[in-house]
Amino acid sequence: MALVVQKYGGSSLESADRIKRVAERIVETRKAGNDVVVVCSAMGDTTDELLDLAKQVNPAPPERELDMLLTAGERISNALVAMAIESLGAEARSFSGSQAGVITTSAHQNARIIDVTPGRVQEALEEGQVVLVAGFQGVAQDTKDITTLGRGGSDTTAVAVAAAMNADVCEIYTDVDGIYTADPRIVPNAKHLEHITYEEMLEMAATGAKVLHLRAVEYARRYGVPLHVRSSYSPKPGTTVSGSVEDLSVEQAMITGVSHDRSEAKVTVRGVPDNPGVAGRIFRVVADAEIDIDMVLQNVSSTDSGLTDITFTVARSNGAVAVAELEKIQEEVGFYKVVYDDEVGKVSLVGAGMRSHPGVTATFCEALSNAGVNIDIINTSEIRISVLIQDTQLDDAVRALHDAFELGGDEEAVVYAGSGR
Amino acid sequence: MALVVQKYGGSSLESADRIKRVAERIVETRKAGNDVVVVCSAMGDTTDELLDLAKQVNPAPPERELDMLLTAGERISNALVAMAIESLGAEARSFSGSQAGVITTSAHQNARIIDVTPGRVQEALEEGQVVLVAGFQGVAQDTKDITTLGRGGSDTTAVAVAAAMNADVCEIYTDVDGIYTADPRIVPNAKHLEHITYEEMLEMAATGAKVLHLRAVEYARRYGVPLHVRSSYSPKPGTTVSGSVEDLSVEQAMITGVSHDRSEAKVTVRGVPDNPGVAGRIFRVVADAEIDIDMVLQNVSSTDSGLTDITFTVARSNGAVAVAELEKIQEEVGFYKVVYDDEVGKVSLVGAGMRSHPGVTATFCEALSNAGVNIDIINTSEIRISVLIQDTQLDDAVRALHDAFELGGDEEAVVYAGSGR
Repeated sequence: MALVVQKYGGSSLESADRIKRVAERIVETRKAGNDVVVVCSAMGDTTDELLDLAKQVNPAPPERELDMLLTAGERISNALVAMAIESLGAEARSFSGSQAGVITTSAHQNARIIDVTPGRVQEALEEGQVVLVAGFQGVAQDTKDITTLGRGGSDTTAVAVAAAMNADVCEIYTDVDGIYTADPRIVPNAKHLEHITYEEMLEMAATGAKVLHLRAVEYARRYGVPLHVRSSYSPKPGTTVSGSVEDLSVEQAMITGVSHDRSEAKVTVRGVPDNPGVAGRIFRVVADAEIDIDMVLQNVSSTDSGLTDITFTVARSNGAVAVAELEKIQEEVGFYKVVYDDEVGKVSLVGAGMRSHPGVTATFCEALSNAGVNIDIINTSEIRISVLIQDTQLDDAVRALHDAFELGGDEEAVVYAGSGR
Repeated sequence: MALVVQKYGGSSLESADRIKRVAERIVETRKAGNDVVVVCSAMGDTTDELLDLAKQVNPAPPERELDMLLTAGERISNALVAMAIESLGAEARSFSGSQAGVITTSAHQNARIIDVTPGRVQEALEEGQVVLVAGFQGVAQDTKDITTLGRGGSDTTAVAVAAAMNADVCEIYTDVDGIYTADPRIVPNAKHLEHITYEEMLEMAATGAKVLHLRAVEYARRYGVPLHVRSSYSPKPGTTVSGSVEDLSVEQAMITGVSHDRSEAKVTVRGVPDNPGVAGRIFRVVADAEIDIDMVLQNVSSTDSGLTDITFTVARSNGAVAVAELEKIQEEVGFYKVVYDDEVGKVSLVGAGMRSHPGVTATFCEALSNAGVNIDIINTSEIRISVLIQDTQLDDAVRALHDAFELGGDEEAVVYAGSGR
């Protein structure tokens, strides 16, 4: 008898009918002889509707109360799935994050899981129940207040519960049947991947593949929880995520795929005095506004002026704040101006194979050059190459790289849709 | 500095605008120098919408999960009111029933409060916070599962919290500005009551006055919590509920008012053998179906047949089940048939004054007789007379009694609307 943790996203639960379909799959898994723990996101648009209400009563809602409010969403979906399971003749019991022992930091809206003490979950499983755990939420260790985990929270809950209970697998159900070598909406012959290592999945997720959330994959990797990303609407196997690139033989190490990201913007600070400490001052201002910087380019001073340009990328949603914060120190630092450009896109190639194949970077740049794509910033890790380009050329770049590394399959892929939190 | 507990019903919280108005009143009370604990019902139709979803996934939803589901409603309204309070510059903190220490029995959907241990509420008050406690919900002492309190649950929560914290007053905010001598929709000159005793309020609530729930009044009486029923939309004082009829002088003891109820149905079992134990058998069958019986009439056997009729009233919503259960024992008991009639209404006169004025029953019957109203069943307590009549005559009966006991005032009353749970 295996212990299976299943996580269902919001779009898989957006109506009573979809909830019933999810319940059927859960009961099937239970009847096949498995212990089943289910983690649910909030139904469809519930979270957005609640956020909208919050903004109506307070344009800057306090985060503690926002957490109290939003956790109602998972409580609802969770209880409804439990009811649907019982209507199919199986027994089910739902628990809030707090009841399931999901202990977190007290950072409201973005708490981190400290520990999972699933005593009540274990007990209910032993009584033959299907157990439902509300995703995305926990209880703060110190204040005992209700917290939420931020983006990808329900995936993280599922992985953390799977880790704490030593589950055999953590299945993440979503709108697509797994990870592809590229977004099939851009590359029609993108190939379905049966398996991928944690590191490759992390690089894919960090560079735009939206199927799995970065934090959940990091958690799975740290605790060695095998993931299985699959479709809520199809019985086909999806993509398993496990193992390390370190353990791959040279033959096994391949190019995994091409990911892309349209969510970044480029900020250029022009005419920066090329003195020690100035770049640090600029990045500190951005960091103090709690804005993550992704790619960075510092040009060598091209003249005798002693001035240089510093270019970096941030999430578009943070662009305006980043510019405003920088302009506050313009006089103090003495640079010319800040230039903002959100007509950029990032394309990345990911794969353990590039560790053993030195020609990858050359092929990568040739492929883009042949497609007439100009590279703005380049950034690499041991198993990834990312470049910032014009956003209008992004689709062409994805197709050119996918072709150049011969990643295509024989069949047309199912087309992507969004994925729940 | 006083400690004020305020309870707001669902219709006072049905939109963002109403929530903001409620928040203003709360902040006013706080700024006047009071400690304030607020208990909120779910917003407007939330409970009905959640119930509807539940029925869609399971026509007979398990009660434990139903409680988990429905408590999301108060969690939402509670957090929103806290946000609205903070937007007015006061500090607020919301707690679930469980966090506020509302300990109950484990009877899902109809739990009773065993104890309130408001440690966290007290602490937050001491820090100067307005404290919000989710109404209608608690946590079961034995199973630690989430429970709901059934009808009038939020009123009961407010009273129980007020009792546990020794509050100076428990204000129940609703659509009307208090208790009237009759429903102003039927009797335009119905008079507003400034004060009423617990016993009178209990009799009024039990016989159809919907402003306060019976259980909450019982709880308030047991713990001596002064209630103040007032309108969410007006600053006018409402009706205070306190004290016992025992403490009233003869001069103070008056006729309180006329209440009415259209929610009952009459069940008559015809041709019942007039043997010992038979009536008991009939009432036992109804009780075993968890149906409450209100009024009862057993006719004396009118012939030598040894047969009699037994008539009683139940809630209309239970009528079909009551009849079905009785028909199951028809053969065994040997009665003729069961007759069901839901075209009945109940009118009641309530008042401590009738203890010292023996002519009340006579005046009561004369007034109805003069209005051409026929009495079907009569039922009395020390401070109440109730009669079952034709439902088409109910309004006439209310007006006739209100006139006969000279209960009218000089002004027209504000018209009633529904009240929250």
